[in-house]
Amino acid sequence: MAKRQLRVGLIGYMFMGTAHSNAYRQVGHFFDLPVEVVMQGLCGLGEAQLKAAGQKLGWRDYYETDYRKFVKRADLDLIDIAVSNNMHAEMAIAAAKAGKHVYCEKPLAMNVAEARRMVKAVEKAGVKHAISFNYRGAPAVALARQIIDEGRIGRIFHWRGQYLQDWIVDPKFPLVWRLQKEVAGSGAHGDLAAHSIDLAHFLVGDIAAVVGDMKTFITERPRLREAAGGLRARRAAGKGKVTVDDASVFLARFANGAIGTFEATRFAPGHKNDNFFEINGSKGSLRFCFERMNELEFYDRGDPPHLQGFRTIQATDPKHPYVHAWWPPGHIIGYEHTFIDTVYNLVTAIARNKLPSPNFYDGLKCQAVLEAAAQSVASGKWEKVRA
Amino acid sequence: MAKRQLRVGLIGYMFMGTAHSNAYRQVGHFFDLPVEVVMQGLCGLGEAQLKAAGQKLGWRDYYETDYRKFVKRADLDLIDIAVSNNMHAEMAIAAAKAGKHVYCEKPLAMNVAEARRMVKAVEKAGVKHAISFNYRGAPAVALARQIIDEGRIGRIFHWRGQYLQDWIVDPKFPLVWRLQKEVAGSGAHGDLAAHSIDLAHFLVGDIAAVVGDMKTFITERPRLREAAGGLRARRAAGKGKVTVDDASVFLARFANGAIGTFEATRFAPGHKNDNFFEINGSKGSLRFCFERMNELEFYDRGDPPHLQGFRTIQATDPKHPYVHAWWPPGHIIGYEHTFIDTVYNLVTAIARNKLPSPNFYDGLKCQAVLEAAAQSVASGKWEKVRA
Amino acid sequence: MAKRQLRVGLIGYMFMGTAHSNAYRQVGHFFDLPVEVVMQGLCGLGEAQLKAAGQKLGWRDYYETDYRKFVKRADLDLIDIAVSNNMHAEMAIAAAKAGKHVYCEKPLAMNVAEARRMVKAVEKAGVKHAISFNYRGAPAVALARQIIDEGRIGRIFHWRGQYLQDWIVDPKFPLVWRLQKEVAGSGAHGDLAAHSIDLAHFLVGDIAAVVGDMKTFITERPRLREAAGGLRARRAAGKGKVTVDDASVFLARFANGAIGTFEATRFAPGHKNDNFFEINGSKGSLRFCFERMNELEFYDRGDPPHLQGFRTIQATDPKHPYVHAWWPPGHIIGYEHTFIDTVYNLVTAIARNKLPSPNFYDGLKCQAVLEAAAQSVASGKWEKVRA
Amino acid sequence: MAKRQLRVGLIGYMFMGTAHSNAYRQVGHFFDLPVEVVMQGLCGLGEAQLKAAGQKLGWRDYYETDYRKFVKRADLDLIDIAVSNNMHAEMAIAAAKAGKHVYCEKPLAMNVAEARRMVKAVEKAGVKHAISFNYRGAPAVALARQIIDEGRIGRIFHWRGQYLQDWIVDPKFPLVWRLQKEVAGSGAHGDLAAHSIDLAHFLVGDIAAVVGDMKTFITERPRLREAAGGLRARRAAGKGKVTVDDASVFLARFANGAIGTFEATRFAPGHKNDNFFEINGSKGSLRFCFERMNELEFYDRGDPPHLQGFRTIQATDPKHPYVHAWWPPGHIIGYEHTFIDTVYNLVTAIARNKLPSPNFYDGLKCQAVLEAAAQSVASGKWEKVRA
Repeated sequence: MAKRQLRVGLIGYMFMGTAHSNAYRQVGHFFDLPVEVVMQGLCGLGEAQLKAAGQKLGWRDYYETDYRKFVKRADLDLIDIAVSNNMHAEMAIAAAKAGKHVYCEKPLAMNVAEARRMVKAVEKAGVKHAISFNYRGAPAVALARQIIDEGRIGRIFHWRGQYLQDWIVDPKFPLVWRLQKEVAGSGAHGDLAAHSIDLAHFLVGDIAAVVGDMKTFITERPRLREAAGGLRARRAAGKGKVTVDDASVFLARFANGAIGTFEATRFAPGHKNDNFFEINGSKGSLRFCFERMNELEFYDRGDPPHLQGFRTIQATDPKHPYVHAWWPPGHIIGYEHTFIDTVYNLVTAIARNKLPSPNFYDGLKCQAVLEAAAQSVASGKWEKVRA
Repeated sequence: MAKRQLRVGLIGYMFMGTAHSNAYRQVGHFFDLPVEVVMQGLCGLGEAQLKAAGQKLGWRDYYETDYRKFVKRADLDLIDIAVSNNMHAEMAIAAAKAGKHVYCEKPLAMNVAEARRMVKAVEKAGVKHAISFNYRGAPAVALARQIIDEGRIGRIFHWRGQYLQDWIVDPKFPLVWRLQKEVAGSGAHGDLAAHSIDLAHFLVGDIAAVVGDMKTFITERPRLREAAGGLRARRAAGKGKVTVDDASVFLARFANGAIGTFEATRFAPGHKNDNFFEINGSKGSLRFCFERMNELEFYDRGDPPHLQGFRTIQATDPKHPYVHAWWPPGHIIGYEHTFIDTVYNLVTAIARNKLPSPNFYDGLKCQAVLEAAAQSVASGKWEKVRA
Repeated sequence: MAKRQLRVGLIGYMFMGTAHSNAYRQVGHFFDLPVEVVMQGLCGLGEAQLKAAGQKLGWRDYYETDYRKFVKRADLDLIDIAVSNNMHAEMAIAAAKAGKHVYCEKPLAMNVAEARRMVKAVEKAGVKHAISFNYRGAPAVALARQIIDEGRIGRIFHWRGQYLQDWIVDPKFPLVWRLQKEVAGSGAHGDLAAHSIDLAHFLVGDIAAVVGDMKTFITERPRLREAAGGLRARRAAGKGKVTVDDASVFLARFANGAIGTFEATRFAPGHKNDNFFEINGSKGSLRFCFERMNELEFYDRGDPPHLQGFRTIQATDPKHPYVHAWWPPGHIIGYEHTFIDTVYNLVTAIARNKLPSPNFYDGLKCQAVLEAAAQSVASGKWEKVRA
Repeated sequence: MAKRQLRVGLIGYMFMGTAHSNAYRQVGHFFDLPVEVVMQGLCGLGEAQLKAAGQKLGWRDYYETDYRKFVKRADLDLIDIAVSNNMHAEMAIAAAKAGKHVYCEKPLAMNVAEARRMVKAVEKAGVKHAISFNYRGAPAVALARQIIDEGRIGRIFHWRGQYLQDWIVDPKFPLVWRLQKEVAGSGAHGDLAAHSIDLAHFLVGDIAAVVGDMKTFITERPRLREAAGGLRARRAAGKGKVTVDDASVFLARFANGAIGTFEATRFAPGHKNDNFFEINGSKGSLRFCFERMNELEFYDRGDPPHLQGFRTIQATDPKHPYVHAWWPPGHIIGYEHTFIDTVYNLVTAIARNKLPSPNFYDGLKCQAVLEAAAQSVASGKWEKVRA
């Protein structure tokens, strides 16, 4: 008997679109799914580029450049939004209104107000919603959560979240959309800190108040010859203004009494995609660095005293979360697998008529921290987080 | 205009079959290929299991349990052999005789005599041939080769190759086919050391002589309830004899004057798939560990004296071999990608009417080292390598 | 010809007194000194303990329990103050008034006002002064400074300073003097963050403003049976209040535009004496962890693009700062050597009639940051640093 | 009441003499000793250099250039031999004949015959004897032994010992005594492999048979201007022949069934003093690298399956061997401390009229393995170890 289908329509075919497409292509080959995932349609700007991308990424032969039409297609069950942040809200709301389940890239929105409207829209429509905090899909991160749930860390004292990259240290790097506030909303803050915040929520709990700082180290950059989306344009004379933060740092007070530090930057030479966290608790500590995403470090104060030390767990055993679907121990997986694991959760939840996790509520909560931190930069003082 | 097709027929659907299938599925989505890879047919034992595997792994609806028929199918261009070692020779020779290109898992054969017959068969048939020394497909390994080719290591003094695993330390682990000489040929020696030997050939050069030792730590194990391939069988009473080595060690003299140590074992707790090597030369050193396969360590004696140190290169930049096809820097890849890179090479070479690399000649050369090491264990003295 | 002597009088014989004593004992055996260091006298509480300590630590047979007398002794040239923080100011001022050079443990004082009085006293007396920011004496730290001075890091963007320990995570750990505000001044803040601040000053530059948070996780602890200094006292019934911070975190804006994060805690299980920093600049990055104090990590954006990576420099070569006095490459040194290197600087500067570095000005500057951070905790907003 | 004295006479004041002197100077300041160690006399070549060295190193004002007189001095209890290997036997035998306890640098002798005569001499004289296998004095190494003794590793399968250095990779490095067979006996083999062999004996057990290889990569080097010992000599014209091995590798069969690999080289760029070992057993694994000598890695198969991983134990806790004498956790120690710990053992054993460990029997056992490996190089086959 043929499985029921879940027909996906994806908007966006750049970096995130590529990662999501791969996840849909691969998920059924590794996981046992309650539904058949069908890569039904792809939406994006530029007819030719769209079609080329669709073929490369494995989408069926249906392409659409108008997202308003796309979200209304009767043959789509799930709309996946993988475009620049300024489009999330209107696309997600339109999809919800059309009765589609919605899966949205992070950060959920440009601000808390938008995020709230998105939440209301999906609630009103009664559709399922999810957000792509893909790092929760790393087995080592899921294992961290399991270890915490098992009570092995005890009362949490410290969260240390750093997301460090270095791809724009060169002042000649051009003014891409991620450096423009009207498109990206913010810089390292919404792009990188958003992931750290979500991991903190996932592993430690709610954040009550924050105080922070932001910095743009390179304030002007060469304009791009071509606009985002591929429209041909003459190279504008000279430079344009960088309107987002290059780096964002903030302190946090968690509702449960833990204290946290957050740092996100694109100006840390040597760090490529270093999404790092450490958690210190009364019974032990946990440490993770995405560049070695198959490893989780765990310190157990319950070990015999002369044998205590951070142990490097290779989270590649079938006993570890998600790994039953992957390769034997030590045969590591990579970045793309975090999306596949996330899509596995998403698809399974929808098939079972459950709300996926993480979802728009998590996206809103993250947005509230992002916004409070930004407000704190303006006010120069601690700001409460109001989700 | 439609691309020419390369129609693949795969024999075997267990661990290696799964890895190869994934490579065929994925290669065209990331690399630009001169041909279209078609997953035409799957061959293996057990009709029901075969069909289920084929569907899971993405093969077209053609399944065959008789490899003799399979290799003669007119709609197949390439036969991929991913089964136990004792079948490699007869399958590869049959495929070559049928005029098919042949891609074979390692070790190439059960012994040098078999390997020579395989080489003759593909030469006579004039078909392309390749062997799955997939670790060459790790970007960090290819980068090591590039660094050597750039003259940055100088004269090589030392090779240190260790392939350490721990999956059969438990004496209750059953007597699987990999522990039976008549099926596997050898244990850690052919399974693991074969990879180390190939990497040494790839990076250092030919091996002239070896002296070694082998050991079976657990000599009896519980018999398996089911025989390999899935045939139902009653669990035999008691235990059976382990007829392969649990560990293999040997010293080597390279033709170029370097000296080497090799160690392969399945009895190293904590090492999951630790395919490690280090090379020391007059100008610098290189170090690689598969469990952190995205990293290559490089020590450069040409650095200013007060700044010399092993540097950990994240081989995840588009500037590194293969990585243009993958994700941005720091967004790591995994085990399966070594096969995709390998299949990319294979497919591209065949399409361009070139001999892929590594190929049966590399397989034979590796086999000769394996055999000389085994002879040395019997003779208790150094043995020359005779390919 | 006999060398001129530098006659040292040390106050304190606990942890720091032991480390300082060792430095005086050893410095002349490894370094060429312009003077002979004489371990002339030891001062401390409790006649019997004092004498026992003096013999163990290698002091000449002169012991004094009254520091006021001690600092006036004609046969002392240098007074070294290695006691609890609340005594630094009055001892240092008394020593300066008596015309002695002064070497003081960190933090310099209980607050900025005290630190200013100390500075005035040494200035007025015209004596040399120094502070024991011993981590500057680690060869790897001095190498970091050299690399920065060579222009290899470029414009500095980020400072990340973490000083993590775990020795009081257990709630049963008693109420020692370091946990009492009237004796210690503060907790992790003055004890650990003080070192991080000094390293930031040493390597990055002046700090203009800070905003911070502090936390006491365990607010009550068992009272000690004996008071500090060894006076016998009955164990008080029950528990006493912890009056210092267990952890301190703050953000910083440097005068040169860099931004910084600081974290100091005694509640990070698995970190024993993890005085860590990382610096990111336009040309490269530096990273140091005291627990591996013989290593400095350096990332050079000037390396060929495909070879860039953090390199682990073993700062154990005679080419590295201080190491000419120590052992051959790879024969590592330890904690105590940071004091010996520091005392080498101190003694050499005094002998040459120069001001040692770091000195009371550095101590005052550090104190001003400590105080601004503490004020920020009270005010909930950014505070300017006023030295 | 004054302690009894142990009056030490040291022969040699170069590298090892410096390390031993430091140990005698420091041991009483950290450990509680049953005797007072007195640095009574120093013996060596060259009156002026000897005296200068003695003063620098802290020896009392008694210097002697004739070791034959020196060993007979009535005011010496212990003779410490820290000179080139070719002098060990005659000095040790003379000291024993004079009724002195003897402490000798490793390797014990130039060959097994010499070593046997040394053993007979100390046995006949009834004096205590010890050998400076100082790496046993690293707390992490002693902890490894403790963990094995606690049964936490189980049956040992593998020993992997590598001692890697790089100080003579440059062909311009001159022909020092360590590169001359008549003085040094051998090269990396006796200098470095000797330590690995002793650690294998200490941690795994006796070695039954070996097969090996040796290599001299640079066969000629510039002659030194000055001969060893500081005698002025004109620089000889041209180059001289290197008569020892640059590298030594061998395989070993332990009496208990474990198998081992050994590698010692001075040609491994990036490795400075990398005395490394790993042990794999049925219950777990241990790993040590001297360059991070304060750390021991331990993998415990008894941990919960999802939490297994190599843990990095900082062997810096008072609970760890020797550390009660040193600094608080995380305040690491260095190379010199291995000698101090060794001298602590030595002095304590002598004071208690016990045989120190390791001693000449250990030295002889090591010598037998060295010799068997060398014989194997000549014979091209496995050789039994005959102590």
